[in-house]
Amino acid sequence: MTVTTPQGFRAAGIAAGVKASGNKDVAVVINDGPLDVAAAVLTSNRVHAAPVAWTRQAVADGRARAIVLNSGGANACTGPDGFADTHRTAEYLAQRLDISAQDALVCSTGLIGVRLPMDNLFSGIDTALAGLSVDGGSDAADAIMTTDTVSKTAVFAGAGWSIGGMAKGAGMLAPGLATMLCVITSDAVVSAAVADAALRAAARVTFDRVDSDGCMSTNDTVALLVSGASHKEVSAEEFTSALTQVCADLSRQLVADAEGASHDIAVKVVNASSEDAAVAVARAVTRSNLFKAAMFGNDPNWGRVLSAVGTVPEDVAPFNANLLDVSINGVQICRAGGVGEDRELVDLASNREVHVEIDLHAGDATATVWTNDLTHDYVHENSAYSS
Amino acid sequence: MTVTTPQGFRAAGIAAGVKASGNKDVAVVINDGPLDVAAAVLTSNRVHAAPVAWTRQAVADGRARAIVLNSGGANACTGPDGFADTHRTAEYLAQRLDISAQDALVCSTGLIGVRLPMDNLFSGIDTALAGLSVDGGSDAADAIMTTDTVSKTAVFAGAGWSIGGMAKGAGMLAPGLATMLCVITSDAVVSAAVADAALRAAARVTFDRVDSDGCMSTNDTVALLVSGASHKEVSAEEFTSALTQVCADLSRQLVADAEGASHDIAVKVVNASSEDAAVAVARAVTRSNLFKAAMFGNDPNWGRVLSAVGTVPEDVAPFNANLLDVSINGVQICRAGGVGEDRELVDLASNREVHVEIDLHAGDATATVWTNDLTHDYVHENSAYSS
Repeated sequence: MTVTTPQGFRAAGIAAGVKASGNKDVAVVINDGPLDVAAAVLTSNRVHAAPVAWTRQAVADGRARAIVLNSGGANACTGPDGFADTHRTAEYLAQRLDISAQDALVCSTGLIGVRLPMDNLFSGIDTALAGLSVDGGSDAADAIMTTDTVSKTAVFAGAGWSIGGMAKGAGMLAPGLATMLCVITSDAVVSAAVADAALRAAARVTFDRVDSDGCMSTNDTVALLVSGASHKEVSAEEFTSALTQVCADLSRQLVADAEGASHDIAVKVVNASSEDAAVAVARAVTRSNLFKAAMFGNDPNWGRVLSAVGTVPEDVAPFNANLLDVSINGVQICRAGGVGEDRELVDLASNREVHVEIDLHAGDATATVWTNDLTHDYVHENSAYSS
Repeated sequence: MTVTTPQGFRAAGIAAGVKASGNKDVAVVINDGPLDVAAAVLTSNRVHAAPVAWTRQAVADGRARAIVLNSGGANACTGPDGFADTHRTAEYLAQRLDISAQDALVCSTGLIGVRLPMDNLFSGIDTALAGLSVDGGSDAADAIMTTDTVSKTAVFAGAGWSIGGMAKGAGMLAPGLATMLCVITSDAVVSAAVADAALRAAARVTFDRVDSDGCMSTNDTVALLVSGASHKEVSAEEFTSALTQVCADLSRQLVADAEGASHDIAVKVVNASSEDAAVAVARAVTRSNLFKAAMFGNDPNWGRVLSAVGTVPEDVAPFNANLLDVSINGVQICRAGGVGEDRELVDLASNREVHVEIDLHAGDATATVWTNDLTHDYVHENSAYSS
């Protein structure tokens, strides 16, 4: 169901031969209205894919009717020809739906630097449109998978209205955004301004706080389509809260399926001088290969937490290094910058989830960033991806 | 010979039982003068070890007579007691040499968060002092090794004067500085001001441009001791140039012995708007786990180079993403932000060294940062280090 859980949406996901494997690789999601509200949050990478450039300008007016997504190729670093391919894709879809190309968003994911097989993509769009269904959400979620081992979907059920979402992403997960494609639908009645603000607010505390491997993608896109088909007016506050829940759910699923990971690690920073300071400190830890390798080894090596914390400049996060406390899975193994509880008390082996808490004693702001451990399987998957 | 190659220095390296393995673990280097010029560059990590705090203040007057180094324990995150241990170490050494404790520098390396066995350390200092020799440089270089597989030494032979150096460091290599201990000696006649400026200039373009795994250490120290025993006055320019050669040689040895690495990778950025811009772009690439894993797989995945380059903010490094060229081992596989030469032409398997060149087409500045690939052995070594 997923993106087709809310009223007013049809979807399909089919195999078009874009992927060499023969698995599903083209998804289409249609907003049948009555509203055509849309918003998107896109990668901040200066090297971004053609579909990101297209979608950014197409959604600028806060409206869209359809989105087409393909796996099997990122259409990034493909130059003007690659952008023409994306443009033709939007026009092809729009023509068949009798809408403006400006109301057709495009997403691609897969290997960088390879042109898409346009004949396959076009015939795939035809097949998908012929198979559009209010039950098509699951197929669509399957069709956007790359190295994902499971499809990711989430729903929020309001009083007479709902939100549904699907996402893909298993590697190259990093902030601004986590590397991923995500489509979220809702049948609530909200304005384009509310949709845009809600999506930015939700992404900031969810997708932007997943940092699996520190690598920012060229193709990250989170698109929101709003049909208004429930005819329920929802306040900005309520909509933002619900959307944040769906985004948090999908983010958590991305972490849980990250390439080769054996631990999902929540790095929570408390008593920071500001939320930005808390995020900066948490991010420094989630990007430390030494910390992440220690977690893989079930080794509560808190010195690697502190040495990562210490790399954050003072103007970004004021703190006194001699006051820092660190707990891992509830055991305060570092107290006041020095040795705390016995490290033998920390149990890392029993659970996939790990909770690290860093107390800066510098204020009252808090933030959590999720990451994964650095494993042999991560190295294996990413040393063999394109060959 | 190494640190004892220049005239006026004696050294020793012995096993004191600080390391559980029984290997050499305490080194002492003495400057017999006539000059007692000294300088040091220390980690910028806000969480720094007790010996870093000690050495920073002890060398502030530009003078030192002796340095004691131990492996087997970093004495970091050990609180006021740990600092007292370092202070006692300096006083113990100074008393036996009849010098001021302020002229005794201290370095430690090893696991964070563990107090040093002071009885072993003190008896080790006694043994080392009894064994001081003008041939003791090699033993000293051995005694500072941790996960290093070989000791690192370098010399520069001037006309009647010389520089000698030793370094250790095999993991946690990252800028500001590369994680390491390094002692450099010279018998040139230079002032404290020249020594300090020369060391900072040399470190900036050598140790600071080694970024093996992006992790900054708590203990990094590069100390320079100048005896003036050659009685040769050397110009600031000549001394800086020679010192930079020695630091570059040692840096290159650190990269070549990085934990678990199978490739040494030079990321050279050319035609940048400034040297800082070139360094920022090179560093973004050397910190990409996806790029580093691809190198391990001998996969010339240039999309991962571009996606890392694109994460650098425009105000840090102006460039047009559609103009970027990337060569790997001389093959320009990315041209004008898109597909260039056939990737099959890139040979990564035949050599340990890899040369990546990124042309920003934005100016005329150049910088090179060295890193390593991300390998199974890196994960293995760093998931098991402290357990």
